[in-house]
Amino acid sequence: MPPSKADRMWTHEEINGSFTMGFRIVETLFVQQSPYQRVEILETADHGRILLNDGVLMLTERDEFIYHEMIAHVPLFVHPHARNVLVIGGGDGGTAREVLKHRSVERVVMVEIDEVVVEACREFLPGLSRALEDPRLKLIVGDGIRYAAETEERFDIVIVDSTDPVGPGAGLFGRSFYESAARILAPQGILVTQAESPFYDADTQAAMLTSLRPLFEHLHLYLYTTLSYPGGLYAFGFASRGPCPLKDFDSHRYKLSGISFRYYNADIHRAAFMLPSFMRERFGALLDPLEFADSG
Amino acid sequence: MPPSKADRMWTHEEINGSFTMGFRIVETLFVQQSPYQRVEILETADHGRILLNDGVLMLTERDEFIYHEMIAHVPLFVHPHARNVLVIGGGDGGTAREVLKHRSVERVVMVEIDEVVVEACREFLPGLSRALEDPRLKLIVGDGIRYAAETEERFDIVIVDSTDPVGPGAGLFGRSFYESAARILAPQGILVTQAESPFYDADTQAAMLTSLRPLFEHLHLYLYTTLSYPGGLYAFGFASRGPCPLKDFDSHRYKLSGISFRYYNADIHRAAFMLPSFMRERFGALLDPLEFADSG
Repeated sequence: MPPSKADRMWTHEEINGSFTMGFRIVETLFVQQSPYQRVEILETADHGRILLNDGVLMLTERDEFIYHEMIAHVPLFVHPHARNVLVIGGGDGGTAREVLKHRSVERVVMVEIDEVVVEACREFLPGLSRALEDPRLKLIVGDGIRYAAETEERFDIVIVDSTDPVGPGAGLFGRSFYESAARILAPQGILVTQAESPFYDADTQAAMLTSLRPLFEHLHLYLYTTLSYPGGLYAFGFASRGPCPLKDFDSHRYKLSGISFRYYNADIHRAAFMLPSFMRERFGALLDPLEFADSG
Repeated sequence: MPPSKADRMWTHEEINGSFTMGFRIVETLFVQQSPYQRVEILETADHGRILLNDGVLMLTERDEFIYHEMIAHVPLFVHPHARNVLVIGGGDGGTAREVLKHRSVERVVMVEIDEVVVEACREFLPGLSRALEDPRLKLIVGDGIRYAAETEERFDIVIVDSTDPVGPGAGLFGRSFYESAARILAPQGILVTQAESPFYDADTQAAMLTSLRPLFEHLHLYLYTTLSYPGGLYAFGFASRGPCPLKDFDSHRYKLSGISFRYYNADIHRAAFMLPSFMRERFGALLDPLEFADSG
């Protein structure tokens, strides 16, 4: 479907039947029903371009740097030497863009189920999708769950850059997928997963952590904030076959990386793992304890 | 005006003409035009009761604990012995509720300009306003700016629990108010101010910090998250006549306080002062540097 002038002025997203959010639209750039979802890219008044799947906001150009820096740099600066990285989902290219900023990374395999997302972002979100042209990246259009179950490759880091646990994203929150993820991680490997909102999705988080706990040596949640999703406070799961996200954070490599960060930095890295009391109460028994050295 | 059934199903708040948010309403509990603003308390489907001034969301019962714990406990656990606390604004009582949990506090003066807010919250938000009955609290219905300019009292902590810098809240972001606040702080005193969103109000933050900088020995921003305001990530200003928010955090007193926290804890205290790179870049020259001891 060709780009067309917007026939509406605002997006309207309804969450749990109890909260709404919307962005003012100045132009509809792309709308197409894929085999999986309705994919839209819209130009907003004040948040750059936005990507929606089935009407659910995936990202805004204005704040996507937060999500993508936090999903990528946290494991990359903890793993001692990540060469092979698997990204499941992430068809917009933002996660791959950040991963590929690390010189240690020799190869990124990205498995995105929806080619329409990739093509839409290639055309209308070049600031993200440009990374997909990197010769170190291999894009596979296919089912990440099946890929993880069948591949004989091993990865230093697996990043699950998924949608919500409905539609194509549902299986990425299930126990059998996590077993595959643990299987394909090399020793010292780290799994990072999009883990939703501590306010709106606490049951999803509890189920995820319960499934991950027996499979990994270290298990944590870490936090980021977002303009784009309701509730503001969001989490990633961090499951590791060895490295500890604080003790093994490589501050030397961080300082010499030459990467220009807009959100991430060494202090944010540590701060992100410090959980509010209500999250400690709910999830503490499933997580490894972590404190600042001097918290007493 | 007596409580009435809701004549609308959703609130609709528009921010900068570019973003909307709304909550599903099940009942209108209170609506009254005060001399300053239209005050509303509504029962929502999934966020408890909410308070709106002129249609702008002030708080939800579901997440108000974050804002109120962070505005109160951060300075209270840094000041060596806070006896006298001034709260400007905060008519709902939530900030006073948290301040009064500290045994060192002998007296809280609260100066709220809008009596209608106080009366509405007394009736419909008792979980917050109950604190206003504490015998240690003195409520003054009046102009906080004038109070700060004229009072001969001295305070260990001044907390500005204000609305946005429009309407009655505007002067609370101005240089002459900050001069008054510095004047009425005792030695070792700390000023904490509601400081808006790093995304939507960066210019307001820059102006605030520029005004505060020459008046205080230490100047910082610290962060909290919210369901209630657009953008998710919000800041408080922390201006001190002596104590450093990290070095002078009293972990011993924290551990013995017996206070039951839902968001705040010793690690969150430290983490809150760690700013994302885009904030360091914008505000770093105005703030005192702070890092985790081991960030290198």
